[in-house]
Amino acid sequence: MVPHLTTALTGPLHELERRMLAAMPQIEHWFRSQWLEHTAPFYASVDLRNAGFKLAPVDTNLFPGGFNNLNRDFLSLSIQAATIAVEKLCPEIHRLLIIPENHTRNTYYLRNVAELAHILRQAGLEVRIGSISPEIIAPTTLETQEGQTLLVEPVVRRGNRLVLENETLGNFDSCAILLNNDLSGGVPELLKNLEQTLIPPLHAGWTTRRKSQHFSAYNRVLEEFSRLISIDPWLLNPYFATCGEIDFHARTGEDCLAAQVAGLLEKIRVKYTEYGIKQDPFVIVKADAGTYGMGIMTVKSPEDVRDLNRKTRNKMSVVKEGLQVTEVIIQEGVYTFENINDAVAEPVVYMMDHYVIGGFYRVHTGRAVDENLNAPGMHFVPLAFETSCSTPDRAGAPDAAPNRFYAYGVVARLALLAAAIELEETESLNT
Amino acid sequence: MVPHLTTALTGPLHELERRMLAAMPQIEHWFRSQWLEHTAPFYASVDLRNAGFKLAPVDTNLFPGGFNNLNRDFLSLSIQAATIAVEKLCPEIHRLLIIPENHTRNTYYLRNVAELAHILRQAGLEVRIGSISPEIIAPTTLETQEGQTLLVEPVVRRGNRLVLENETLGNFDSCAILLNNDLSGGVPELLKNLEQTLIPPLHAGWTTRRKSQHFSAYNRVLEEFSRLISIDPWLLNPYFATCGEIDFHARTGEDCLAAQVAGLLEKIRVKYTEYGIKQDPFVIVKADAGTYGMGIMTVKSPEDVRDLNRKTRNKMSVVKEGLQVTEVIIQEGVYTFENINDAVAEPVVYMMDHYVIGGFYRVHTGRAVDENLNAPGMHFVPLAFETSCSTPDRAGAPDAAPNRFYAYGVVARLALLAAAIELEETESLNT
Repeated sequence: MVPHLTTALTGPLHELERRMLAAMPQIEHWFRSQWLEHTAPFYASVDLRNAGFKLAPVDTNLFPGGFNNLNRDFLSLSIQAATIAVEKLCPEIHRLLIIPENHTRNTYYLRNVAELAHILRQAGLEVRIGSISPEIIAPTTLETQEGQTLLVEPVVRRGNRLVLENETLGNFDSCAILLNNDLSGGVPELLKNLEQTLIPPLHAGWTTRRKSQHFSAYNRVLEEFSRLISIDPWLLNPYFATCGEIDFHARTGEDCLAAQVAGLLEKIRVKYTEYGIKQDPFVIVKADAGTYGMGIMTVKSPEDVRDLNRKTRNKMSVVKEGLQVTEVIIQEGVYTFENINDAVAEPVVYMMDHYVIGGFYRVHTGRAVDENLNAPGMHFVPLAFETSCSTPDRAGAPDAAPNRFYAYGVVARLALLAAAIELEETESLNT
Repeated sequence: MVPHLTTALTGPLHELERRMLAAMPQIEHWFRSQWLEHTAPFYASVDLRNAGFKLAPVDTNLFPGGFNNLNRDFLSLSIQAATIAVEKLCPEIHRLLIIPENHTRNTYYLRNVAELAHILRQAGLEVRIGSISPEIIAPTTLETQEGQTLLVEPVVRRGNRLVLENETLGNFDSCAILLNNDLSGGVPELLKNLEQTLIPPLHAGWTTRRKSQHFSAYNRVLEEFSRLISIDPWLLNPYFATCGEIDFHARTGEDCLAAQVAGLLEKIRVKYTEYGIKQDPFVIVKADAGTYGMGIMTVKSPEDVRDLNRKTRNKMSVVKEGLQVTEVIIQEGVYTFENINDAVAEPVVYMMDHYVIGGFYRVHTGRAVDENLNAPGMHFVPLAFETSCSTPDRAGAPDAAPNRFYAYGVVARLALLAAAIELEETESLNT
């Protein structure tokens, strides 16, 4: 049982959150018109940082894990949103095949897959789990972290279709396939040129996707949105820069990196002065095509990226599934001012279609406010949001939890919109 | 605070509910295809009767009150569904005018209007309440049953638009108007030939609507649905017959009524024998164009409708707002086998667009299992459903509450589909 928390950040709402609440009808109207022009991804999660003076997305995941960390009291909200997403996808759909990540020994991850399958079954689909892992060569019953069982079957390619073949359960041929695998290891041949609809499309995977392209789309989204509610876009937007052609082992690209770090720190310093913020600016250096919190570094000075020791260079040079890092994004660090019993707490917001279905805090006792929580082998404690993000109480106390969560939902949806635009722009790169 | 009840009816699920659970993927797929062909009303509530062996809708309300009786824990579900309904209606919408019933002294009803306005505001609309009551001649602040205040303003017709004119708050001109007024007293001139979209349309009001037309559409819906899950349609469908040209005062039409009652009782008796049901069949006689539980009679023999005393004739001859009853529907009575502490409990299910958003039980201690709870001046106790209707636990115990509620949600949606078809068929009658 996940404990309920009102919000990690207590105290009155900040000016920014207040502004969003006041502009709620305009904001919702604006989102409605945006979703007429852009198609929301089937699902997504967005990592936020709340520094009080600033509330920003730092990562948008198009293959979200962690559905099991959402507040079960709001399961019906996920089911309703899944129903809508499925109706838009293809109302004729009967069956859905889910392709999970290959790490079948991570029982926490398996718990997420079980929850995702549960939501989609409740939305009225027949759902089965098909693995592309070379280790899964026969139907295999795995145990999840909470002791549930999950049947994972090997996928079989028949012509241009991926199917399951199982004498006991019967064969399974679905018109659509839901990827919960971010393709960090590249797009397997098995998934190329399929007749079936892949959700999300292959170019949403890390083979094609770049964080910098996402945040470039986010810049444009924010330009319009910040005009709508008359705020400085920086309050919702982390600065970023990129360096291509980095080789941490060969130590090439270090000059570019140091220069970009220096430039970004200076830009942040100007803003900090403008807003009277006393903290030291910092930036995060991370792989432009990466995930899972690997290959991430917190940097407070250009010197920090010079003369890296072997250990750091090793850490930075490889992300998940051995993917080499050659492009990095340098992103403005946003302080995490939310905490629970002195432990840092970072909100993650989940969406299906363009609806916010919930979220949770990653709570980590052993980390500082300027470090990244989504680290390898992270032992965070998930704390589900107590209320939904769609029930602000505009007449209520300004520090009411639902009001804070409304702001989270808005920023998460802005990042979702950026992801929608990003996927339109990269569609031609679809493999 | 409404107490939470798991379900009024404890004990194992009946065969019927079990059948629906097993067929869930087929049922949801079928509904998806139906909603491609038919447009769901913006909102609706359906009164159900659960006799254990039979689960049937007995009334479908297209101007639902009672939103305040839903479980507040699922408010976000209503908001999400309202968002969807609004997007379908007109994504460009900013403002919505709600026209409530005229009985502004019913504080329970006002509580419903406040809740409905709250849901729509949370969906991101600017909402104001415009009254067509002749008693509201200036902006009036009314107090609801729970002590909230509700500002009701008189509507003004400007050309073919209904607007609010208010120097303090500013004028209000909305592209759509939501009726929460069932037009029992006829369609006021004020509402005719408006440029604005009326939701639901005027022909959903009782000036045009007939219960018999609704249940005729329901018959057709059930014919298809019962084939889909291989059941006797009678298990979800109350028999009915009609009599036109009744005049309770002049005692004309009594022969027709007695004959229809006799015929219907006989048909029910055959079914009761087939299923080994020991109870006495009964029918409900009610106005074909009526609501609010007025003009309703429980009948167990044709003799019951002959030689009615003056009191009963008076009761039967007039429904809400003095509307004369000339057409009646004779509907198979369905026993209410759900009860809470010996009080009869009848489920009501609420929907927005085609999504079930919740429900509650009408609990009435002073009534028998074959009487109607929705009576004038009813003093029912609303008991919100503890769980949503979309979270069945197919692996769970067969008597798990969510499983029962799933069946309720299915039958309510079948009635909703019938209402959609009914409104298509009566569209040409739009005044």
